[in-house]
Amino acid sequence: MKFKKILVTGFDKSALDENVWSRIGKLAGKIVFEPTSDVDCLFSKFNKIDKKTIDSLPNLKYIGLLATGYATVDCEYAKSKNIIVTNIPGYATESVAEFVFALILETLRNLEKAKQTGRRGDFSGDGFTASEIKGKTFGIIGMGRIGTRVAEIALGFGAKVLYWSRKRKKDIEKKGAKYQSIDILIRKSDFLSLHPNRNKETEKIMNEKRINAIKPWAVFVNVSPMELIDLNALEKRLEKGNITFIFDHPDEMDKRDVKRLAKYKNCIVYPPIGFVSKEARILKQDIFVSNLENFLKGKSPNKVN
Amino acid sequence: MKFKKILVTGFDKSALDENVWSRIGKLAGKIVFEPTSDVDCLFSKFNKIDKKTIDSLPNLKYIGLLATGYATVDCEYAKSKNIIVTNIPGYATESVAEFVFALILETLRNLEKAKQTGRRGDFSGDGFTASEIKGKTFGIIGMGRIGTRVAEIALGFGAKVLYWSRKRKKDIEKKGAKYQSIDILIRKSDFLSLHPNRNKETEKIMNEKRINAIKPWAVFVNVSPMELIDLNALEKRLEKGNITFIFDHPDEMDKRDVKRLAKYKNCIVYPPIGFVSKEARILKQDIFVSNLENFLKGKSPNKVN
Repeated sequence: MKFKKILVTGFDKSALDENVWSRIGKLAGKIVFEPTSDVDCLFSKFNKIDKKTIDSLPNLKYIGLLATGYATVDCEYAKSKNIIVTNIPGYATESVAEFVFALILETLRNLEKAKQTGRRGDFSGDGFTASEIKGKTFGIIGMGRIGTRVAEIALGFGAKVLYWSRKRKKDIEKKGAKYQSIDILIRKSDFLSLHPNRNKETEKIMNEKRINAIKPWAVFVNVSPMELIDLNALEKRLEKGNITFIFDHPDEMDKRDVKRLAKYKNCIVYPPIGFVSKEARILKQDIFVSNLENFLKGKSPNKVN
Repeated sequence: MKFKKILVTGFDKSALDENVWSRIGKLAGKIVFEPTSDVDCLFSKFNKIDKKTIDSLPNLKYIGLLATGYATVDCEYAKSKNIIVTNIPGYATESVAEFVFALILETLRNLEKAKQTGRRGDFSGDGFTASEIKGKTFGIIGMGRIGTRVAEIALGFGAKVLYWSRKRKKDIEKKGAKYQSIDILIRKSDFLSLHPNRNKETEKIMNEKRINAIKPWAVFVNVSPMELIDLNALEKRLEKGNITFIFDHPDEMDKRDVKRLAKYKNCIVYPPIGFVSKEARILKQDIFVSNLENFLKGKSPNKVN
């Protein structure tokens, strides 16, 4: 079975490699970039797909998202029209987990300054100091795919890993991580990294009380959405100067909020590059096309509605 | 038992913390910084201690080195005079091992540029890409203290770890590292890190043939002395542009040699900061004083002669 006509929206040709387009080509009569009413498959990324869009495509059977998130799609309405929506979960797990350690080690070793010092030909090493990860307490909030990999890597470094998660995860406990209540975990952790699912319950999970409870001189990393954090409380804590906060999703925030955090020297802002590894890009595209192929074979492992 | 008089050479008061000086104070009648002939204990770091120095101190019983290396001391001559020489092995193991990953991740994630981009307020993420450590081959030459920790951390990242060492090390093999001949290891490794003992056999262990055999696009890290590498061959390989080389001991090299390597964009020079962690500093001083205390109790665990 094949699709008659695929409509691509929300991204352009460069978002997928050529070999991926040729795999897709085998699954469709035609691929178009402008809407026509006889489309039976719709590609999308972060663009809105509401009732109106769905109603404008009466033959639609499948919506393939080139993204993990699907809050932009009216999934219930799609379901009522027998349209299946698929996403791409977990493609960047490793990329994001390794990025957490890249960020922590960059800070602990003062690498930006070190690289510049070396480039200038100053090889004295004067003024540099560092901290080790081994033996420290590494707190992880949320033990899903990414949290699990962060835990495994932290254990390799010889850190004491504490985690809190909605459910206990026996597998990571067998490897040495210890379950802890969120409030004790926050007080004990020298390194703190957030990896819970984003939903109403986890919104501002780092509330004022918890932000104030972060161990002095801890390194607090958030490569997850900033909705997890009470920004007013974070700003106050940054002003005190006794934590370092590192994040990489300024792109999803109000610019004024980024500015009021980034003005503190102990706040490091990266562009959103945690998920950009070559391996993640390949895996993402592969899952995207596999979703299509599976649907045409009557299977849909990454269905979200 | 106590020393009568300790002579400090090769470093000044700031090299040791105050509490360490007070521990030393309890072990000696006097501590001096200018030579007198009645000295029975000598502190030294990298300064030369030859026959002449030893003959000038007829009461000398103990030379305590605030360093791991002891090539600067005429250990045989000291032994013939019944003088014990002690060093400080392994104090920076963890600091150096973690530094290897700091360097690799900084490069893989392009963090210097990312930090600057973020500081400028450019949150597009455009132009960034990255590679993951997981699933790659991580080659380690030399499986002593530091090599072992590098292997354990690499295994935590999910790398396939290959190692070559003068002797096979079963403990790390049980954890998943595989022994390999040095030449095959070099050809297969996506990441390559050198940690052999420095001696005549390991001088230029990375000879021209081996440097040419490094896998294209590998990241080659050397936080060990540069005597391990044939610099002419390395320069030629850097010129080809298909490896990245990162090192942190420019301070021990001829300045012209540093310059001819550092001129290549794919060569990254850091100041010698791999061993500077706070934890390493504390451990180093503690071992230094423990050596003294042990000697006075008739024990000398870190004797090198």
